[in-house]
Amino acid sequence: MQRFLDLADFSREEIVELIDLARRLEQHPEPRVLAGRILGLVFFNPSLRTLASFQAGMARLGGTSFVITPGQGTWQLETCLGTVMNGGAAEHVREGLPVLASYCDALGIRAFAEGKDLARDLAETAFHTMAEVVDKPLINLESAMNHPCQALADWKTMDELGVPRRGKFVLSWVQHPRALPLAVPAATVHMAAQRGMDVVVLRPEGYALPPEIMDKARAAAAAAGGSLRETAQRDEALAGAHVLYAKEWGSTAHYGDVEGDATLRARLADWCVTPEWFAAAAPDCKFMHCLPVRRNVAVADAVLDSARSIVQREAYNRMTAQMAVLHRMLSRGE
Amino acid sequence: MQRFLDLADFSREEIVELIDLARRLEQHPEPRVLAGRILGLVFFNPSLRTLASFQAGMARLGGTSFVITPGQGTWQLETCLGTVMNGGAAEHVREGLPVLASYCDALGIRAFAEGKDLARDLAETAFHTMAEVVDKPLINLESAMNHPCQALADWKTMDELGVPRRGKFVLSWVQHPRALPLAVPAATVHMAAQRGMDVVVLRPEGYALPPEIMDKARAAAAAAGGSLRETAQRDEALAGAHVLYAKEWGSTAHYGDVEGDATLRARLADWCVTPEWFAAAAPDCKFMHCLPVRRNVAVADAVLDSARSIVQREAYNRMTAQMAVLHRMLSRGE
Amino acid sequence: MQRFLDLADFSREEIVELIDLARRLEQHPEPRVLAGRILGLVFFNPSLRTLASFQAGMARLGGTSFVITPGQGTWQLETCLGTVMNGGAAEHVREGLPVLASYCDALGIRAFAEGKDLARDLAETAFHTMAEVVDKPLINLESAMNHPCQALADWKTMDELGVPRRGKFVLSWVQHPRALPLAVPAATVHMAAQRGMDVVVLRPEGYALPPEIMDKARAAAAAAGGSLRETAQRDEALAGAHVLYAKEWGSTAHYGDVEGDATLRARLADWCVTPEWFAAAAPDCKFMHCLPVRRNVAVADAVLDSARSIVQREAYNRMTAQMAVLHRMLSRGE
Repeated sequence: MQRFLDLADFSREEIVELIDLARRLEQHPEPRVLAGRILGLVFFNPSLRTLASFQAGMARLGGTSFVITPGQGTWQLETCLGTVMNGGAAEHVREGLPVLASYCDALGIRAFAEGKDLARDLAETAFHTMAEVVDKPLINLESAMNHPCQALADWKTMDELGVPRRGKFVLSWVQHPRALPLAVPAATVHMAAQRGMDVVVLRPEGYALPPEIMDKARAAAAAAGGSLRETAQRDEALAGAHVLYAKEWGSTAHYGDVEGDATLRARLADWCVTPEWFAAAAPDCKFMHCLPVRRNVAVADAVLDSARSIVQREAYNRMTAQMAVLHRMLSRGE
Repeated sequence: MQRFLDLADFSREEIVELIDLARRLEQHPEPRVLAGRILGLVFFNPSLRTLASFQAGMARLGGTSFVITPGQGTWQLETCLGTVMNGGAAEHVREGLPVLASYCDALGIRAFAEGKDLARDLAETAFHTMAEVVDKPLINLESAMNHPCQALADWKTMDELGVPRRGKFVLSWVQHPRALPLAVPAATVHMAAQRGMDVVVLRPEGYALPPEIMDKARAAAAAAGGSLRETAQRDEALAGAHVLYAKEWGSTAHYGDVEGDATLRARLADWCVTPEWFAAAAPDCKFMHCLPVRRNVAVADAVLDSARSIVQREAYNRMTAQMAVLHRMLSRGE
Repeated sequence: MQRFLDLADFSREEIVELIDLARRLEQHPEPRVLAGRILGLVFFNPSLRTLASFQAGMARLGGTSFVITPGQGTWQLETCLGTVMNGGAAEHVREGLPVLASYCDALGIRAFAEGKDLARDLAETAFHTMAEVVDKPLINLESAMNHPCQALADWKTMDELGVPRRGKFVLSWVQHPRALPLAVPAATVHMAAQRGMDVVVLRPEGYALPPEIMDKARAAAAAAGGSLRETAQRDEALAGAHVLYAKEWGSTAHYGDVEGDATLRARLADWCVTPEWFAAAAPDCKFMHCLPVRRNVAVADAVLDSARSIVQREAYNRMTAQMAVLHRMLSRGE
């Protein structure tokens, strides 16, 4: 495997194989399989789980990693092409990334959406500029519109906890003090669709996912025998749900417009998941969230601390799922 | 060993055994004993010795480590329970810490006192909130009122340099531009008392250690055959002393009151240790300090650069003492 | 090898041997030769290549490393002697560095010029204060006036790409938004002189390298059979050149005078390397730069993206050259 950038690049079977490999490595550890292998991690944005799970995952396979954080210990890196670099950035990714790639065996890059221009973010302009100049195996640690590591971990988690393959999966918008990127909602609907589930996107007016994201996921749903639709009606959405996956994101009707988004979300304080949300759901409906999550803003303590919540398992599976990706990319036997 | 949170949790014999193990590992290194083991280090506050000594110590035992720094590379983490998280913190320790713990074999946490409410800091509210949700071996890298790694290193250092077990140990307040936490003074008096020494706390008016700290140390002194008292009289305190341990801390009479503390300390410029302080001390009286120390504010160059000063040995023993803790926690043979 | 602080400390033969060792390690990796060895890296200034190449290089030899960044995760460290430390710095390098050295097998330190007082920077006052208290092998990761790791990597790169030993080497000043240190130009002219090349320093008026730097390099040139001169005439300088090495630095006529330097450099916008600069150069004249570089300020995209540019190879050779230094310092067999 040379690139792990989007779950959509892999067939359902390939994903199932990756998850099987992750499970095999849990049961039969291979603590020296990546001995001498080096992973470079570049974080344009903050990280907790991604940083720790990749460093720990490499170590558990016998490899090592180094971390570069532009703007913190390392200067800012420019991603725009053809620019006159007389501003804050001291180096262009066209130099910096191939250099880092030349020191390691695989590179991971986290670079969130700019959040100003929806078309530009949908096009993954910055990530593509970077991916183009890296000639080593490359992992997307979250880009403007994708987060394949999270999606793979979530799929594995649902498999482990018995969420039916044909079950009802509700991705619900939830409250947050400010607009967040679309990466996780985009990756999540596609993952659930690709798994073959009946996917409902529950969100208030002004927060519809862009057609580009919905159409791509709808095609995946069709191929896997599932479905995808969206609604603003909470009761109807959650009736019979097997999973409520909560996520915060910015208004797409006011993309890049901080004030427009703020006005809209100011009226949406009740989009904080409480135990009542599960009234008509399937009895063992799970609560999922990729973390970090703001308690009592996006979700009530009573939900997060209940048996429904599988957020810890999702986070743990970041490590196990990523170990499968690293193994596939870097073990010499494969 | 599942927890290393407070030297007071261990008997004198257990501490002596830990120090023996540290010495054994110095003489007979075990460079592979922690192969495959991972230590997670979480720093809510800055670090130099703790960071480097734990990373180097794990490496010398064949293990690896990762570092998370909330507010720097990682967002801020909330420690208060039941709060509505609409402020600066993006994640609660109730999510963040169990997740990190699930990636590693042991976790170390540094979280200084808030320095606002003495009762709250004495209760170690924040540290307990965190310790409660970590189900892996846990090390206190300095909490509001404790620093067991420093205490263990200091005990080992005194043993090595022939400081008599029944010797006179003077902990003296020294000058600093601002109020610092009580963690090191609290851990130090307890350690010296537990070692069986005659302990004197020398401090100006307004800087008495809280009764909770003194009482706990006094009980340890009684059990070990030593003693504990406090005074503001420098000459009397230092007469015959075997150790002068200097430390900066904030006024307990004005705890959390920046101006009150500043007014008091403005008159205490002569609380900077000079060679004259040792006039009536034992001939080979040692100078100790946990570092970092401000030269010519807390202690004069002439003391720090003299043969009395054993601060480098204390710092080196952070690593050797912690290696014993890690070995006891993580080696599979034990 | 106990110290790697200045290429000038080594004979031509010793440098050639180091480069041979670097090449041998590329062809015949020794992935366990530094097992159990620990490198401490202290960065007073930002880093990308140095950080990643040293961490990856140690890992490729089986060793490990830790990173300390004063001012970021670690408090500021004081370098002035005899000072009353009541300012921003919480610890003196006289404590901090020996402590860090006691945890590791070799230490690397990056500490740029202060850029205020030329004589003080030329004297390497801060670096010497630090080097004096470190009793472990020590590597200069870039000091006020030196960057031996870059110089060694550049020498190796020229050898590999067939740049004639007696070729013409032009170090040219190029544009930057502000004054940068003299470390790389100083190390570069000396390296090219020591290699035996005909070295020309091309720079506008006000940017002459200090006589101390030029005299030292001239002596090296004389010993190696090369030459060294300086000029402000671009055409004449570049005629027949085998290498154009571009570098930004501050005005030496206005050293430490931000406005004076800014006034001067405001008129020098045409000191951005374009393809035209190579009109009269040798046909395969190489473009070199140590990176980071500001595109279209110091050098045009058309040069950096052309076949002339060997900046990626230079950066890659940071790792390979440093691995030879680490091997020489730390492998037990040697």
